[in-house]
Amino acid sequence: MGMTSTFNRQNLSEFDLIKQYFSPLGSSHDAITALGIGDDAAVLTPPVGQQLVISTDTLIAGRHFPLNTDAFSIGWKAIAVNLSDLAAMGAVPHSLLLALTLPQADADFLAELTRGMAAACQSYGVHLIGGDTTAGPTLTLTVTALGWVPTGQAVRRSGAQIGDWIGVTDTLGDAAYALCYPQSGLQLRLDQPRPCIAFGQSARPWVHAMLDISDGFLQDLMHILTASWCSAQLELDHIPLLPQLKSLPKAERYALALTGGDDYQLCFTANPEHWQALENAATEAGQTITRVGSIISKQVEAFCLYEEGKRVDLADLLNPTQANFDEKPSLGFQHFK
Amino acid sequence: MGMTSTFNRQNLSEFDLIKQYFSPLGSSHDAITALGIGDDAAVLTPPVGQQLVISTDTLIAGRHFPLNTDAFSIGWKAIAVNLSDLAAMGAVPHSLLLALTLPQADADFLAELTRGMAAACQSYGVHLIGGDTTAGPTLTLTVTALGWVPTGQAVRRSGAQIGDWIGVTDTLGDAAYALCYPQSGLQLRLDQPRPCIAFGQSARPWVHAMLDISDGFLQDLMHILTASWCSAQLELDHIPLLPQLKSLPKAERYALALTGGDDYQLCFTANPEHWQALENAATEAGQTITRVGSIISKQVEAFCLYEEGKRVDLADLLNPTQANFDEKPSLGFQHFK
Repeated sequence: MGMTSTFNRQNLSEFDLIKQYFSPLGSSHDAITALGIGDDAAVLTPPVGQQLVISTDTLIAGRHFPLNTDAFSIGWKAIAVNLSDLAAMGAVPHSLLLALTLPQADADFLAELTRGMAAACQSYGVHLIGGDTTAGPTLTLTVTALGWVPTGQAVRRSGAQIGDWIGVTDTLGDAAYALCYPQSGLQLRLDQPRPCIAFGQSARPWVHAMLDISDGFLQDLMHILTASWCSAQLELDHIPLLPQLKSLPKAERYALALTGGDDYQLCFTANPEHWQALENAATEAGQTITRVGSIISKQVEAFCLYEEGKRVDLADLLNPTQANFDEKPSLGFQHFK
Repeated sequence: MGMTSTFNRQNLSEFDLIKQYFSPLGSSHDAITALGIGDDAAVLTPPVGQQLVISTDTLIAGRHFPLNTDAFSIGWKAIAVNLSDLAAMGAVPHSLLLALTLPQADADFLAELTRGMAAACQSYGVHLIGGDTTAGPTLTLTVTALGWVPTGQAVRRSGAQIGDWIGVTDTLGDAAYALCYPQSGLQLRLDQPRPCIAFGQSARPWVHAMLDISDGFLQDLMHILTASWCSAQLELDHIPLLPQLKSLPKAERYALALTGGDDYQLCFTANPEHWQALENAATEAGQTITRVGSIISKQVEAFCLYEEGKRVDLADLLNPTQANFDEKPSLGFQHFK
């Protein structure tokens, strides 16, 4: 669709683009996709007894990925970060819509971008059912991800209960570390995140609340606390860290692990009785889980931090030399500065 | 979600923004929306016997609407053009996801933008179920529209049959005229298009193929011809035009009506026996329909143009003084120049 329309002449039209590069991403013969790419809209037949789970996220070049990110990784990441939202609901991913804004129609770039998308689609069993390609000044990818969950079983942020343990998958701060230390060998943690699809589904019966950690652990945990109307106690020395992060000075280590973005790990709360089931689910999914704290009361939106059994203050922790600094550090990624 | 994350301080966080301006758009208490704005994803309970119809479209400032467009109209248009895709499938619109990229978080702008969105939501009975707000250099709105249609009844582009009449709703070229003549009184045709929701649904049983005209009538009709593997004969003097367009020189008149974008009228093909039913449907929806041609053969992707009974050539028509110009004019809006 478009505003102006006269007699633009060009070599590669929008329609050629879509056909050439994106059609292979759309091939699917399942019972759900009745009509995929190529009409005004896609048509899906809902599976019986399932609810639709749907989410959308935008990635902008230079903001959500470094400008020098390779095209394959951009394609992978655009899909992966959206599937991460479905994982957090315990949903089974099904399909995607892609709204792509390109500064120019560069064939090599498109080939690599769609190769990265195809790899993610194949890894997580999803296919493209529609989209829109437009020219614009900044490379921007908005993916809408669709999945299905048995009716009534989607995991919300609002179900945390007093006495729940708080857990996270794998390790925190890896992507933020890669951003700070580009030659660290952790680059793929930033460029090609792995959404916890399998664990999200297996964990579904055992968790009270869950979300994906995308804007920084503390900020995202706060969403669970706000939605569930409760407070948390965190044991900072239990936060799972890769050796690279463990070797950093404490302030930097905690800044990356507690407030660093782009983890795409899951944070969840569960009755301690179900911890073993969750550990088994993680093992089967090729992941680990770590208990990092507990839900302690029905006071709203608060957490207290402990380190080696002693209460600590976040501002002191992150700004050890400026303990009286009168502004509190924010808890994670904020989109407007 | 975001890439970097340290200690940005600011007055209006993303979350405040979303809460303050977009939450009112999300209020709904229907049987379908089980979970709306505010979690990792929305959850919908599919109505029994219905298929999901879903489409996504991006609007970029300066490209899909003029830079001086008022915020209310931008909000209206972002929703309207997406609902137009659902109308073309004969679907009942239900809900929306919005991915919004803003250069800055300006409260006045957001208030007007969301007022325009709310007006469109109310007019067409839809509500917001999710989205993503990001900061970026260019105002960009990507809306994903969801609707429902009785199983098997979505109208595709591929169903046109030999002998079908080709029809369009209302008049063509209005928005393109408004773009060329800003003080013409047709500004709202460009800024606040009205998707043919009611007609699309009523027409559903009577049409073989349908789409919305967004990139220019001839280009969009070509999608029906390609998908249906057939050809069309068009009677150009039957194209419905407002008086303002009728008074233009012929070349300009046809350029606007045949290749002008942003009409958001519906183009459809139907058995002539059902024309009366379609006229009744249009009347009930407060619209008109006009027969502009016929599907004439199963030769692929071609149309021939007639004017007052005589065969005419598109290139001659649009470039009367350059009849031997060796490049053909393109048929509508192309996104890459």
